[in-house]
Amino acid sequence: MSKTTQLDTFNNSHFKTGAPVLKRVFWYIVNTLFFNSFIHSYALKSFFLRLFGAKVGKGVLIKPHVNIKYPWKLEIGNHVWIGEEVWIDNLDYVKIGDNVCISQGALLLCGNHSFTSPQFDLMTGPIVLEEGVWIGAKSLVGPNVTCGSHSVLSVMSVASKNLEPYKIYRGNPAQVVKDRIIK
Amino acid sequence: MSKTTQLDTFNNSHFKTGAPVLKRVFWYIVNTLFFNSFIHSYALKSFFLRLFGAKVGKGVLIKPHVNIKYPWKLEIGNHVWIGEEVWIDNLDYVKIGDNVCISQGALLLCGNHSFTSPQFDLMTGPIVLEEGVWIGAKSLVGPNVTCGSHSVLSVMSVASKNLEPYKIYRGNPAQVVKDRIIK
Amino acid sequence: MSKTTQLDTFNNSHFKTGAPVLKRVFWYIVNTLFFNSFIHSYALKSFFLRLFGAKVGKGVLIKPHVNIKYPWKLEIGNHVWIGEEVWIDNLDYVKIGDNVCISQGALLLCGNHSFTSPQFDLMTGPIVLEEGVWIGAKSLVGPNVTCGSHSVLSVMSVASKNLEPYKIYRGNPAQVVKDRIIK
Repeated sequence: MSKTTQLDTFNNSHFKTGAPVLKRVFWYIVNTLFFNSFIHSYALKSFFLRLFGAKVGKGVLIKPHVNIKYPWKLEIGNHVWIGEEVWIDNLDYVKIGDNVCISQGALLLCGNHSFTSPQFDLMTGPIVLEEGVWIGAKSLVGPNVTCGSHSVLSVMSVASKNLEPYKIYRGNPAQVVKDRIIK
Repeated sequence: MSKTTQLDTFNNSHFKTGAPVLKRVFWYIVNTLFFNSFIHSYALKSFFLRLFGAKVGKGVLIKPHVNIKYPWKLEIGNHVWIGEEVWIDNLDYVKIGDNVCISQGALLLCGNHSFTSPQFDLMTGPIVLEEGVWIGAKSLVGPNVTCGSHSVLSVMSVASKNLEPYKIYRGNPAQVVKDRIIK
Repeated sequence: MSKTTQLDTFNNSHFKTGAPVLKRVFWYIVNTLFFNSFIHSYALKSFFLRLFGAKVGKGVLIKPHVNIKYPWKLEIGNHVWIGEEVWIDNLDYVKIGDNVCISQGALLLCGNHSFTSPQFDLMTGPIVLEEGVWIGAKSLVGPNVTCGSHSVLSVMSVASKNLEPYKIYRGNPAQVVKDRIIK
């Protein structure tokens, strides 16, 4: 007989949130009021991210209704754009290089579960977006994925493996469709 | 000449909301304040769901920003996880078995329209997620779909037909990619 | 050596918002309070859209949590339905014909960027949904796309090229799957 999952046996004690509970509560409030809200101010958002432990470069533009899980697991380079309704669900470390654009509605997803385990163990992995990457609207980047320099993930596509530099990908799972040649 | 749709002739009088208007208004307020909001408390959410007619098991975890249409058309088993921004658009009955995980951003969609009818008739159908099912992040399950025991729908995939037990599906439309073997 | 993008050289001065800054600010507030919110009233929404320069027909139903960028670049026919969480990101002109249904969570996306330019130039294009079109839940229509009369874009599909009249499309990119025959 096939085995079953038992979510009441889930044990997450090995997972490191990376911050004490009070800091997480304060961040949740700041995220609710200033990030996942109608607020526009870029300067305020960079200030708060740094206050909570993120490394944030200059010229970082973060649009309204953005949802960030843990700023202390986040590094953002210079001249980065983060679009409306982008969701950085960074249970693990997310590193965003210079001149990256993450378009509206995209999701960076660092969490996964073991579907072979009855305990449905949480598995997390980092995400790296190298310099000049463009993540298209409503796309999704999964855990343990590095998007190589200046790669492009088209709208509503899913990157569950690494993207090669200067290549354009589309689909679920994302496939190379052509080269990116910058003139 | 091809016929056209006329949405002003749409007639929804056969549709049963399942509750008087005042109950629907109160639920809309509760859903807005406590479910589709930043609120965390799992106990409060199970309490409200039961108050409005849902069957809810023990150990049910419902994350913030969840949107539920009609709790009186909802049944949730034990040890179920419902992720952030999950949308249960249950115009029809939704039954969620024990140990089911619905990941963030997923949509259970019970409504459809007849595209062959000038009146664009509403057609609804129930959704059943059997024991141990995992619906991936940003995925969509359509009306009249049963996801068999311990089936998995991968991220950003679309189930418009039944999923076989212990199989893993991916894509739009979702196709089997491999077996799920729990050790 | 491959060239790189430099987002700090981005120059958007050629882009026409179509309205003075004060009007844009007022619209942002109205959009936040009455559209991208729990508010239901259809009459109020049609009133506000017209006040800010949209052409809006009769019998237009706009559900809660809808996000509209610029009403002065929007034209909506008669008996049009716009579902919950629909996002009309109309940096360019969007024209919606009579008897169109845009289902929940769909995105009309008028913006794009030149991935061959170091300046990552913004490129916008209009979207036309002709009479009787149905845009499925969580689908995406890109810039410069015309969805022909009574065409259907299925759930979670992506239209990046024109859709032929009376055809049903599915997938990313959307492909014809069958004819739409209205009886």
